[in-house]
Amino acid sequence: MNKRPLVREEISQLLERLYPICRSLTGEGNRETLKILREHIPLDIREVSTGTKAFDWEVPKEWNIIDAWVKDPSGNKVIDFGNSNLHVVGYSTPVNKVMSLEELKGHLHTLPDSPTAIPYRTSYYEEQWGFCVSHEEYEKLEDGEYEVFIDSELKDGSLTYGELYLEGEIKDEFLISTYICHPSMCNDNLSGVVLSTFLAKELMKRDRYMSYRFLFIPETLGSIVWLSRNEDMVHNIKYGLVATCTGDDGPVTYKMAKSDDALINEIVVKSLQDSRVPYILQDFYPWGSDDRQYSSPGFDMPVGSLMRTPYRYFPEYHTSLDDLNFVSADNISDSVDRYIDVVNIVEKNKIYINKNPKCEPRLGKYGFYNIAGGQRKPEILDALRWILSLSDGYNSLLDISKRSGMEFCKIAQAAKALRECGLIEEIRT
Amino acid sequence: MNKRPLVREEISQLLERLYPICRSLTGEGNRETLKILREHIPLDIREVSTGTKAFDWEVPKEWNIIDAWVKDPSGNKVIDFGNSNLHVVGYSTPVNKVMSLEELKGHLHTLPDSPTAIPYRTSYYEEQWGFCVSHEEYEKLEDGEYEVFIDSELKDGSLTYGELYLEGEIKDEFLISTYICHPSMCNDNLSGVVLSTFLAKELMKRDRYMSYRFLFIPETLGSIVWLSRNEDMVHNIKYGLVATCTGDDGPVTYKMAKSDDALINEIVVKSLQDSRVPYILQDFYPWGSDDRQYSSPGFDMPVGSLMRTPYRYFPEYHTSLDDLNFVSADNISDSVDRYIDVVNIVEKNKIYINKNPKCEPRLGKYGFYNIAGGQRKPEILDALRWILSLSDGYNSLLDISKRSGMEFCKIAQAAKALRECGLIEEIRT
Amino acid sequence: MNKRPLVREEISQLLERLYPICRSLTGEGNRETLKILREHIPLDIREVSTGTKAFDWEVPKEWNIIDAWVKDPSGNKVIDFGNSNLHVVGYSTPVNKVMSLEELKGHLHTLPDSPTAIPYRTSYYEEQWGFCVSHEEYEKLEDGEYEVFIDSELKDGSLTYGELYLEGEIKDEFLISTYICHPSMCNDNLSGVVLSTFLAKELMKRDRYMSYRFLFIPETLGSIVWLSRNEDMVHNIKYGLVATCTGDDGPVTYKMAKSDDALINEIVVKSLQDSRVPYILQDFYPWGSDDRQYSSPGFDMPVGSLMRTPYRYFPEYHTSLDDLNFVSADNISDSVDRYIDVVNIVEKNKIYINKNPKCEPRLGKYGFYNIAGGQRKPEILDALRWILSLSDGYNSLLDISKRSGMEFCKIAQAAKALRECGLIEEIRT
Repeated sequence: MNKRPLVREEISQLLERLYPICRSLTGEGNRETLKILREHIPLDIREVSTGTKAFDWEVPKEWNIIDAWVKDPSGNKVIDFGNSNLHVVGYSTPVNKVMSLEELKGHLHTLPDSPTAIPYRTSYYEEQWGFCVSHEEYEKLEDGEYEVFIDSELKDGSLTYGELYLEGEIKDEFLISTYICHPSMCNDNLSGVVLSTFLAKELMKRDRYMSYRFLFIPETLGSIVWLSRNEDMVHNIKYGLVATCTGDDGPVTYKMAKSDDALINEIVVKSLQDSRVPYILQDFYPWGSDDRQYSSPGFDMPVGSLMRTPYRYFPEYHTSLDDLNFVSADNISDSVDRYIDVVNIVEKNKIYINKNPKCEPRLGKYGFYNIAGGQRKPEILDALRWILSLSDGYNSLLDISKRSGMEFCKIAQAAKALRECGLIEEIRT
Repeated sequence: MNKRPLVREEISQLLERLYPICRSLTGEGNRETLKILREHIPLDIREVSTGTKAFDWEVPKEWNIIDAWVKDPSGNKVIDFGNSNLHVVGYSTPVNKVMSLEELKGHLHTLPDSPTAIPYRTSYYEEQWGFCVSHEEYEKLEDGEYEVFIDSELKDGSLTYGELYLEGEIKDEFLISTYICHPSMCNDNLSGVVLSTFLAKELMKRDRYMSYRFLFIPETLGSIVWLSRNEDMVHNIKYGLVATCTGDDGPVTYKMAKSDDALINEIVVKSLQDSRVPYILQDFYPWGSDDRQYSSPGFDMPVGSLMRTPYRYFPEYHTSLDDLNFVSADNISDSVDRYIDVVNIVEKNKIYINKNPKCEPRLGKYGFYNIAGGQRKPEILDALRWILSLSDGYNSLLDISKRSGMEFCKIAQAAKALRECGLIEEIRT
Repeated sequence: MNKRPLVREEISQLLERLYPICRSLTGEGNRETLKILREHIPLDIREVSTGTKAFDWEVPKEWNIIDAWVKDPSGNKVIDFGNSNLHVVGYSTPVNKVMSLEELKGHLHTLPDSPTAIPYRTSYYEEQWGFCVSHEEYEKLEDGEYEVFIDSELKDGSLTYGELYLEGEIKDEFLISTYICHPSMCNDNLSGVVLSTFLAKELMKRDRYMSYRFLFIPETLGSIVWLSRNEDMVHNIKYGLVATCTGDDGPVTYKMAKSDDALINEIVVKSLQDSRVPYILQDFYPWGSDDRQYSSPGFDMPVGSLMRTPYRYFPEYHTSLDDLNFVSADNISDSVDRYIDVVNIVEKNKIYINKNPKCEPRLGKYGFYNIAGGQRKPEILDALRWILSLSDGYNSLLDISKRSGMEFCKIAQAAKALRECGLIEEIRT
């Protein structure tokens, strides 16, 4: 996909269009975001009403915001939601009041260590209001009376998410989960949203062995709500990846699924080895994104996260510095390729049994072997022999590619040749 | 415990008081030693008669010694038991005889490689007599007739040992075994005797989940005799440590229990990692101290040995150089702390099950979570999430602390908080 | 065996006698080779008729060759089978014809990268003819008419192999398989043929616990034919080694049997560690020699290959440069020693159970222990204690030697002593 300038152009356009929208746990910004994505992929949009229970949680009121600002004693707007939606703490209650600088400061959030950055803050479960400003601007505020205005609304409404199911030959599913609740920040997580969209577009064009499910949800509560509504079918999900932080310049990073021996871990690692890109492996940890809901002990789904630089590991994280300059369409496009590498293994990783298990078959008979013995043999012959030797009904093609040290695609290609001449046969377990 | 000067002073006093006593496999010196320990802890003193069978062994005659010396041709005492009880080979038979230097030399033991040291020798199972001298003194002996005198006695009597049982909430036991049979040597093994005494004193003050058993026995035969008398209850012993060589300046060394995956091994290693002291791990080997009896295949008890520099690894080992200068109360006190670190894990290492296993509980509801999302979270939240994520009924808190890389005490503290609000519940296996 | 000049002389003589013979998949050269080996060991010679089926294969026609040459336009023999049997492609059909240099070149094989070497080529399954020449000679050929003559014969006949069974105390077998189908090349594989011969000679002199089976077969088809005729008994084969490439100067190399935890792998590795020679381990790969037939999934026999420099890893491989200068009797003799090291473990690797499992036996009673406690103990005491500690009915002497880090022979020697005084007893599983 690296060589597809058109896709890169489309990625750029989608990023730029989604960037200004004010998204949150709920609200119109999320609906608008999903509507734009529907121009690319046929998402089902779901609404889950305020008050709906989901395990230990409950869908809160829907939050929408029209405008917000702070005016200094001279009447200048020193903080303006119109400039950046990060200026307002998510889920801020309405306010319209004049107050002293001292009182105002009790509602201001800054990052002294990153003085030019506006921090990202939310308060979903405690009603309050607040503004976020760069520490530089904060320090310029002079004593006096400030006019503070937030035109927001908390009302019964719904939580909105998008879902796309791509049916395959079998019911086993590969889940791609990404989150749409962050306002104007690019790596976390417009990059994951855009990647998931273009990955889905690519998979829609293909014949699929596995079925694929894409979720575009608000983080944490979105996955909790989705799990509570889909408990009966999650056993179909055999592999999962959370798509986030896929657009920066850092090396590919795979945060592993909780169970060390989860097949998704083996597959992603092999795909990264085969791709020969530099990569970093992170052991699972139970914080981060929705992988922690999917892997809670009541579900224990095999879900990892394939990223570039992970959340919390880049200084721009959760600030206004995570902007359009921090990510690139090239990086997102390259990340799409990494996901497709994983899909390619998932689609072809089957277990075959050698139908001629006693000694080698005479490969020459099947046209595999050139006639003069003792000559240097082509790589395909190695792959054929590995498959014949290890296809005892237990080893998958992934196992064989790992044991042989050969690229999975070479093993899969040889397996196709062997299957076509009847020397191996698929086992469905 | 590092900051307790009073305990260090008590340790010094006990060491100095025990040092001059002539201990052996049996005899009055052992009784005197145990009597002094009873001033600190309520030891039960057991006597096992000469001739008692214990598996392949039998309690030998009791040995006591009043005095012993060698006079040179001029009548000077050139070797004098009064100066060091190491001068006489343990279990030497009585002798009162004049003999040539040549004949005498057949009964003298020296260490040519360590010329100032008096070696430590015993002959429990073959009746003979002998003296141990420094090689320097040995080389000064001149030709002529020597008067040799040992006033000792081998008679039917008993083997003496001390035992202290501290009952806990459950019958499962932690065994601390130390040996009292070495005469005037400090690291091997007054250090182990003193450590065990002060560890027991500390545990007596505490509420105990586990039960604890302390043995103060003569090495080898003592543990064999004890095992032969307690075969029916050794299945209660879930963990054990042999306390020896705990007073020198060397780094903490853990000699592992025989079974590589014994829980005591995991616990000691984790306690050492958490303590951030430098430490050395030794694989099990079937020689050394009483751990080899406890781990013989007929018992296979999980007993390791937590030391500083192990027996045989310091040049002063089994010589008069292993004296009061070679050990310190500070080192012994620090070793007590290491044992207490182990106890602290043993006491709290339980298996819990997450009572809210489907997705995370809403931590904010329970007061765990500060309100503004996206802020740096305190360490306790990590610990809570690890426990919730891994408490599937199989992982113990030790497993969780290992997987998370967090200190056990942090995990245990978080588990307490989760238990108190009903989010996890102990499983008794 | 390193110090046996007579054996080295015999090895040299046998190498030199076998070297000129033209061997192939079938034919008189193979029979002559086996006849010479029968002067050393009582081989059974088997003949398997042309047309006999063996799994996916079939015994082809027998091939014999009397003479072959190419004469240049001046009538000079520029290629002469009389100088090297590698000059003719194995299984070449008869030819007697005058042709242009251009036509001739379509039948010539050279190695441009190794211009002085005559390559080794065969064409067992496609009827054709050809000559192999050094690239140097090839380039000297001038335009004109060449007379080409091959006096060979392809007829119904048989495939010939040799087999030697040395019965032991038990039916379990150790298979040594080597191949006799290569013409004048020494490391690959006269070295393996000669090594197997002298190993068999040595084992014939010994009392044997295991039974041993030696195969001298044509590569690939020979093992396939043998397996097809012996399917019912291959379960007796508990260990196997393919003997090839054992005569060059390279370090010992062990290509492991397919199953990572095959006992033969553990045994060979331990024997190499104990021998303190430098060695290389190769993971199994499903090409190479007959180990790939033995380990095909229908048989899955534990067969590795103990070599010096493996086939394909030396530039002289499959060329005329793999001649008598490339190997030495010293190297082959040293390789025989490596095989005998393996045999020594295989013969003595038993599981014993400690008959006195509760605590240590009193070793002094059995004469194992010197009387004065505290002295440095001899190594045998360590071995005794390891065996007593680990002989729980599950650990073999190999397991014990690996865990202890002691040489297998020391452990075996101590086991003998313990068995003789009744402290341990063999368990037959």
